[in-house]
Amino acid sequence: MADSITVFAPATVANVACGFDALGFALHKPGDKIVARLISGNEVVISKITGEEGKLPLEADRNTAGVSVKALLQKLGIQQGIELEIHKQMPLGSGLGSSSASSGGAVFAANELLGRPLEKKELLPFAMEGERIACGAAHADNVAPSLLGGFTLVRNYHPLDVITLPFPEDLFCAVIHPHVQILTEDSRRVLRRRVRMEDAITQWSNLGGLISGLYEKDYDRIAASLTDVIFEPIRSLLIPGFDQIKAAAIQSGALGCSISGSGPSVFALCRGSETAEKAAKNMQDNLADFGLDSDIYVSAINPHGTVIIDEN
Amino acid sequence: MADSITVFAPATVANVACGFDALGFALHKPGDKIVARLISGNEVVISKITGEEGKLPLEADRNTAGVSVKALLQKLGIQQGIELEIHKQMPLGSGLGSSSASSGGAVFAANELLGRPLEKKELLPFAMEGERIACGAAHADNVAPSLLGGFTLVRNYHPLDVITLPFPEDLFCAVIHPHVQILTEDSRRVLRRRVRMEDAITQWSNLGGLISGLYEKDYDRIAASLTDVIFEPIRSLLIPGFDQIKAAAIQSGALGCSISGSGPSVFALCRGSETAEKAAKNMQDNLADFGLDSDIYVSAINPHGTVIIDEN
Repeated sequence: MADSITVFAPATVANVACGFDALGFALHKPGDKIVARLISGNEVVISKITGEEGKLPLEADRNTAGVSVKALLQKLGIQQGIELEIHKQMPLGSGLGSSSASSGGAVFAANELLGRPLEKKELLPFAMEGERIACGAAHADNVAPSLLGGFTLVRNYHPLDVITLPFPEDLFCAVIHPHVQILTEDSRRVLRRRVRMEDAITQWSNLGGLISGLYEKDYDRIAASLTDVIFEPIRSLLIPGFDQIKAAAIQSGALGCSISGSGPSVFALCRGSETAEKAAKNMQDNLADFGLDSDIYVSAINPHGTVIIDEN
Repeated sequence: MADSITVFAPATVANVACGFDALGFALHKPGDKIVARLISGNEVVISKITGEEGKLPLEADRNTAGVSVKALLQKLGIQQGIELEIHKQMPLGSGLGSSSASSGGAVFAANELLGRPLEKKELLPFAMEGERIACGAAHADNVAPSLLGGFTLVRNYHPLDVITLPFPEDLFCAVIHPHVQILTEDSRRVLRRRVRMEDAITQWSNLGGLISGLYEKDYDRIAASLTDVIFEPIRSLLIPGFDQIKAAAIQSGALGCSISGSGPSVFALCRGSETAEKAAKNMQDNLADFGLDSDIYVSAINPHGTVIIDEN
């Protein structure tokens, strides 16, 4: 059993147009690197956080990773000190599941250090406790794909039921992260409490189509289904240049384009890496016309989720 | 080419708990028998309707089957007289897609008589015109499974996109038709125009789970997903004894149970014909305790939809 372990926990795209609070998928990059070490005592100590300009708290009780690992230890009834180093290699508040990567990565690393008492899927509830700290609700739509990898559907919370969906191998994602900040809470606040029934029907019909398209590897069906008639029209108003970014992605041949999580990042699913590269570049060029900087990422769907990258 | 053709058009279960206005599947029984004949002139004539106690109009312009066949002839630009006999072998206003069976069956029969100028799937818009007469809107969630068979998802209307889903072979349906009448219009009228966002999320998460379950042949997943948190709680109030019927189905081992279409029929999906037989019997016995008569049907999912049963 290792005394020290380093894991990579990937960024994720949640909602995926028609699957608000239900669908998500993992990227190969960006993501967080988390180092966990067994230490004496029974405290969870966050010794270092890098890459976030001091924005995240070191106190374990206020940090998503700390809260998650403490919840795990408590559930297991284990008295064990654990030290965490969190190396943020992805932007905070970007809509790419930054908090989920940290909490999922930390709880995964701790579980490995402890001799893997729980299966990966069983770690979800603890990582979700980190989400509760980060955004006020124990959502699983980022945590699930970050931990488990692939394309996931959170079907139910009580009891938790997360379904791993298949996806065609040639499915790539272009992501643009505009350098503007939207807090998850703000992005949730603009949402209405009720939705028009006809919009809800459109939304679940498309969700059904998307899932069928993923099973059938039917790119036309995936493209047709990547539509959000409820949330995107409202949330996109918070993202400068959204309409132009989306138009640039579609013109580049993307299957579909919508807001990643609660934004401001925007994702475009594409058939093939070349199309995804082109979409990312064109989205970035279009946003630059507004005088806004951005980062872009191109990745296949990451089937592995959180993985060990080093142990000693 | 035949001068006379007889087709069977099956009853259908629409909505399927979590898939309001989107999902549907076909039964082997009950269903309508439609006879179509080429006649001189260019009129669509309904010469006979049986099995509905004189409730349906013989005038082609007011009859779902007549309207559908006229729409087909008009689109094809064909001047041809067609005589229709409609033998209703299923109850009207039962929530089992009676009007869809008649309109789909008639348009399918007419298309065959004319040398099959259109593919089966291309007939959907004409059958939907019959639905417009019957319930005020050109819905496809009964017409699609009745014509095409199997389990269908109407993903989109403009343009029409109907997806045929796979299903496990051992999936059976028990249906109970209580002898009370609910008009589709009334059943639609009780529905709210807006739904709570959290309920919409639950609904589409379950729809996703159901579709995944159908692809994976995962009966547990199908069972868990057969939930309707939006429409069933309201519409079931119009069905005497609904809660008891549903409890009887679940106690019999059904995977799930909900309202068929706009009711009053109630369906229970089951693994295996024995469980379905038992569920049907128990649902009927429970309703009898309320002093209400009913018909019951047990059927596998019908993969064929509307078929020719005789031609001359």
